[in-house]
Amino acid sequence: MSTLSGDTLRLTLFGRSHGPSVGMTLSGLPAREPVSLPALQDFLGRRAPGRSPLSTARREADIPRFLSGIKDGVTTGEDIAAIIENTDVKSNDYPSLTTVPRPGHADYTSYVKYGRIEPGGGPFSGRLTAPLCVAGGLCLQILRRRGITVLSRILSIGEVDDQGDLTAPTCEKAFPVVDDAQGEAMARAILQAKAQGDSLGGVIQCRVLGLPAGLGGPLFDGLESRLSAALFAIPAVKGVDFGSGFDAARLRGSENNDPFALETGRVVTTTNHCGGILGGISTGMPLEIRVAVKPTPSIALPQRSVDLKAMTPTTLQITGRHDPCIVPRAVPCVEAAAALILCDALLSNGKEPHHGTD
Amino acid sequence: MSTLSGDTLRLTLFGRSHGPSVGMTLSGLPAREPVSLPALQDFLGRRAPGRSPLSTARREADIPRFLSGIKDGVTTGEDIAAIIENTDVKSNDYPSLTTVPRPGHADYTSYVKYGRIEPGGGPFSGRLTAPLCVAGGLCLQILRRRGITVLSRILSIGEVDDQGDLTAPTCEKAFPVVDDAQGEAMARAILQAKAQGDSLGGVIQCRVLGLPAGLGGPLFDGLESRLSAALFAIPAVKGVDFGSGFDAARLRGSENNDPFALETGRVVTTTNHCGGILGGISTGMPLEIRVAVKPTPSIALPQRSVDLKAMTPTTLQITGRHDPCIVPRAVPCVEAAAALILCDALLSNGKEPHHGTD
Amino acid sequence: MSTLSGDTLRLTLFGRSHGPSVGMTLSGLPAREPVSLPALQDFLGRRAPGRSPLSTARREADIPRFLSGIKDGVTTGEDIAAIIENTDVKSNDYPSLTTVPRPGHADYTSYVKYGRIEPGGGPFSGRLTAPLCVAGGLCLQILRRRGITVLSRILSIGEVDDQGDLTAPTCEKAFPVVDDAQGEAMARAILQAKAQGDSLGGVIQCRVLGLPAGLGGPLFDGLESRLSAALFAIPAVKGVDFGSGFDAARLRGSENNDPFALETGRVVTTTNHCGGILGGISTGMPLEIRVAVKPTPSIALPQRSVDLKAMTPTTLQITGRHDPCIVPRAVPCVEAAAALILCDALLSNGKEPHHGTD
Amino acid sequence: MSTLSGDTLRLTLFGRSHGPSVGMTLSGLPAREPVSLPALQDFLGRRAPGRSPLSTARREADIPRFLSGIKDGVTTGEDIAAIIENTDVKSNDYPSLTTVPRPGHADYTSYVKYGRIEPGGGPFSGRLTAPLCVAGGLCLQILRRRGITVLSRILSIGEVDDQGDLTAPTCEKAFPVVDDAQGEAMARAILQAKAQGDSLGGVIQCRVLGLPAGLGGPLFDGLESRLSAALFAIPAVKGVDFGSGFDAARLRGSENNDPFALETGRVVTTTNHCGGILGGISTGMPLEIRVAVKPTPSIALPQRSVDLKAMTPTTLQITGRHDPCIVPRAVPCVEAAAALILCDALLSNGKEPHHGTD
Repeated sequence: MSTLSGDTLRLTLFGRSHGPSVGMTLSGLPAREPVSLPALQDFLGRRAPGRSPLSTARREADIPRFLSGIKDGVTTGEDIAAIIENTDVKSNDYPSLTTVPRPGHADYTSYVKYGRIEPGGGPFSGRLTAPLCVAGGLCLQILRRRGITVLSRILSIGEVDDQGDLTAPTCEKAFPVVDDAQGEAMARAILQAKAQGDSLGGVIQCRVLGLPAGLGGPLFDGLESRLSAALFAIPAVKGVDFGSGFDAARLRGSENNDPFALETGRVVTTTNHCGGILGGISTGMPLEIRVAVKPTPSIALPQRSVDLKAMTPTTLQITGRHDPCIVPRAVPCVEAAAALILCDALLSNGKEPHHGTD
Repeated sequence: MSTLSGDTLRLTLFGRSHGPSVGMTLSGLPAREPVSLPALQDFLGRRAPGRSPLSTARREADIPRFLSGIKDGVTTGEDIAAIIENTDVKSNDYPSLTTVPRPGHADYTSYVKYGRIEPGGGPFSGRLTAPLCVAGGLCLQILRRRGITVLSRILSIGEVDDQGDLTAPTCEKAFPVVDDAQGEAMARAILQAKAQGDSLGGVIQCRVLGLPAGLGGPLFDGLESRLSAALFAIPAVKGVDFGSGFDAARLRGSENNDPFALETGRVVTTTNHCGGILGGISTGMPLEIRVAVKPTPSIALPQRSVDLKAMTPTTLQITGRHDPCIVPRAVPCVEAAAALILCDALLSNGKEPHHGTD
Repeated sequence: MSTLSGDTLRLTLFGRSHGPSVGMTLSGLPAREPVSLPALQDFLGRRAPGRSPLSTARREADIPRFLSGIKDGVTTGEDIAAIIENTDVKSNDYPSLTTVPRPGHADYTSYVKYGRIEPGGGPFSGRLTAPLCVAGGLCLQILRRRGITVLSRILSIGEVDDQGDLTAPTCEKAFPVVDDAQGEAMARAILQAKAQGDSLGGVIQCRVLGLPAGLGGPLFDGLESRLSAALFAIPAVKGVDFGSGFDAARLRGSENNDPFALETGRVVTTTNHCGGILGGISTGMPLEIRVAVKPTPSIALPQRSVDLKAMTPTTLQITGRHDPCIVPRAVPCVEAAAALILCDALLSNGKEPHHGTD
Repeated sequence: MSTLSGDTLRLTLFGRSHGPSVGMTLSGLPAREPVSLPALQDFLGRRAPGRSPLSTARREADIPRFLSGIKDGVTTGEDIAAIIENTDVKSNDYPSLTTVPRPGHADYTSYVKYGRIEPGGGPFSGRLTAPLCVAGGLCLQILRRRGITVLSRILSIGEVDDQGDLTAPTCEKAFPVVDDAQGEAMARAILQAKAQGDSLGGVIQCRVLGLPAGLGGPLFDGLESRLSAALFAIPAVKGVDFGSGFDAARLRGSENNDPFALETGRVVTTTNHCGGILGGISTGMPLEIRVAVKPTPSIALPQRSVDLKAMTPTTLQITGRHDPCIVPRAVPCVEAAAALILCDALLSNGKEPHHGTD
């Protein structure tokens, strides 16, 4: 199912890339929360295609039409439903794909599970991340109002790394990095790969500031479990770690443990290898997430595949409009997924009478 | 909550490390499934403490007592409930911990959320992985009967890597690696760290053979989302990736895409960078998971912390029995978590009339 | 939330009576199930308003637009999303209702929970039963193909009872009763109440034939629990019982117990006081449900209420278009709710390898 | 599954009547809630067997052993786990039941679903209501501390009705009625039925005072849906209605609508036909529930049944210890089920910033 069930929030995504529209329902948001539709539209614009030579030429206005839950600029407390029309659908971009699966795509697994390959990827399409960003964008506004900021950036594209420290939003930038020089190098690498009919992947960093300590819970209720489940739902994400993550596996306890200290009467850790999560619960230090995104499977180079009807080997050449690198457009999706989970944890936390260390 | 809700299976873990017992309820397993309790006990033995100089001296028989769901060596189709008594509890191993949180532990977040630090970690204790392994061990037997084998191994401990290829079970070995020479090097590294009052982490690889194509689903229903949610519930896990995972972020599409081919009339991929999952659905190729485990936070070296009552800085020296490296005992936990999710996906798949590419 | 979560099926309803549209998403239906849209439209027509002098004059085409999940007349196995546009909205029918709650309506509780009274009842509107009937109508077709027939009828309207035995569908009739003479008496009673500015309630009977034994489960998984939860979601339903139900409370065990017997080698009960459910599980005998529907709260007679802003008593006179009796239009809603739960139980049962008494 | 999933609370029941023990896990209760174990034990005593000539001679101490979640007389905020040992099990009370289902019991459906008849009813046994009452008893204490009182009484046994108005607790009484004269008549009727080898059913009324307005939600989130799902999980319950319920079906709108009025500045209704629920949400007036309980199926009189192995008709005579009327012991179960749902609604409501009519 395309449903994310939190303790307080429940999100359902629906529709198809090549159908008339996509949409979402989100229940559990409190009433009386101000919603800025322009700010939401800006956020959606960061994910929308057709904005730069680095992304697909497909253009979508991506303007959500709200059916319920928002009235006079505030949430009503009821479930929120929104629909986004698909304005620029070209199914004939995918003529030859009916029985020959594209390597790296969900075509083959879709064929196995549903008995056919749907143009545009059907339920697997990145298009479904548009309504995901509608829901996440609303949660981002609710978090921000509570002093919680979700920062994100591209950490690497292919072999190009951005060494800068993430301290401020990068969303204003055409290319969301800290070190703009590296950002230009990344852009060049993408255009070069595109010229070669190839594609690139990358790593996205997400850092959340202002999160109170005490969100989440033990075992299956842990923040890592919940965040990773939402992040891996983003197409092309193949890895997620927290804090030092995979690097921590090479550290010693004496290096990886974060010592506790007092800072203006507040408990802090002098390092943050745990990424702001201990025992599945937020420590109050910045939340640190890394997300690995694979290179876009749609490439112009000829690829070996199989005709699933004839059961004969064949060579496949993909035409149509595709992103040579999905990473930049995946950045707001990572923010959206994180915001949904953290907003759910924050709202659910409100149920408990006891917070803080008093 | 300590509940994992799949499409068909629902697991609830309960009890505490320093209470009278821990246990689990598991609902959704089909009726008439043979259960080998000796095989289950062997599996639990791999997780149980006190079996080697590499692990804590705490000894637990870890013999589950089944209250329901298993009768005359088969499942009854009802929910399965089991309890494991805590036989070797020494709360006074944790005298000084009441208000001084151990770095890297859930002590501080537990204090924030629940207002106190519970000896032994309370709900966060690795002890809860014993009932997790009871549930996962049952699922492993059900999977094996259907031709699905879950292999796992230690890929690295600290800086020591095992380069061997995982093709056979390693569970018979005292140290579950492919290359025993590297296994000895790992053991030496652990004992050395222990001698230094320190600890080590590592990476675990899990490979699942024989999984049919078509398990899982798009978006939030994807295998990566479900597997990662279960794997991050294991204490000390800080990173999870699938197939090439984080490495894929540095590859090009032409390198990372797995070409389709025919092998004795069956559709295969000639490489497996996707780790056997495309669009959240199994491809029928081996499932590839890597899990990063942080070094055990309990170390003998003195560490800086804070007295949360006095709100004064202090130095903490942990006594008591601890694992210098939790990775070996975490291996069966990874198998158990994976088996639970895959068994749920397999049983849920049974609901659909259409499987395969006919 | 407006989400019904079964073991296999998940339904989400969204939209508002006086918004642009209402809709639903339904996930979990198997792939390759033929869907007759004309038959679905006929079913929706039974619920739709404006078809007779007995119902509101509001007219709605109630034609669902499917966004996903149905292709070429069959289900695809993906989640099904459908939208129904609201074509005939007259918000100014509800001018005076903004702060004066209508007795018997959700106006007051809506005001308490959401801080305002929404025209048309907002999330509480009977309009949301249109997408409910889309989902239920699809399930009815799936059940029928498996030999399961959902019959229903009006058992009583006000003081007029229909004594006939329910053995055949009544859906062809303008007034779904067994004894048409009593049906005419009911219609007369409704028109008389309408002429007096009043309204009537009634009881609906639902009988399901062909259900296999073994559906459902113990305790919270019982068919009564699941069916009642879905049936009480229909606005105006205030009572639900099964088999002899409330009458059974006056019987003796020797009268209420249904003796087992053999009929052409099949186990049957010679009576059916249990309504086809024992221990929450279907017996294979007809399922018997009774649903009590209260009289429509919207009546033309002046009623005492309170102005919630001024906090002063006032008298309320409701204008606009209303049903003098909602019972006839509630009949397909009862079928839809029952079909959803039974289809979920049937599909979930498919997960178990062992059925029947072999 | 034996799991009840609320918005905030999740309850899992496990164990078997004739196994070593039964138990429950309950997650979602807030931290720092005082728990009176003596008061809980008194509550469990009302459900426990062997306390009067009216109930089975089976005696159970029913003393829960808490494994987690309660410490020093308060909840810890973690999940609560409790186990109740089965001390008085006599499986040989059920020698002849292995293949001959008892009429009115779950024996036959259990045989169909699980392939055998379990002594004592297995998962269907009323014994599982002991842990249900542990969970519900804890919720009752939390509700009472917030000024919410759950009153209940026997409304009728067989043909004997109690006409008194329920305004005070009846739990102190050996027979929980308002009119003690009628209570004695009920007791006589039960003993007479018992002497005749027969059994009786009855109706239970539950009234909840002090419930704030605004709990619950529209459609599937309505209080009626949630309460009925929990109440029908109690074995032998066959009907549930709210307020005037089935009687409302015979009223006119002008009779059934509850006029709003002001009482000392508070909005009230001058009647309460809706039973304190409009649109699935509490009105702030008393909650009114009626629950129909069928006569105990275990009777001493010979009954016609079928041998499911031989597939031959047979006559069955049940021996062993049974309740001639389960209604008195079901009264606390109804309170427990109601308290669980209302406590969940109350705690979930806490998530919303806006309460009341300001």
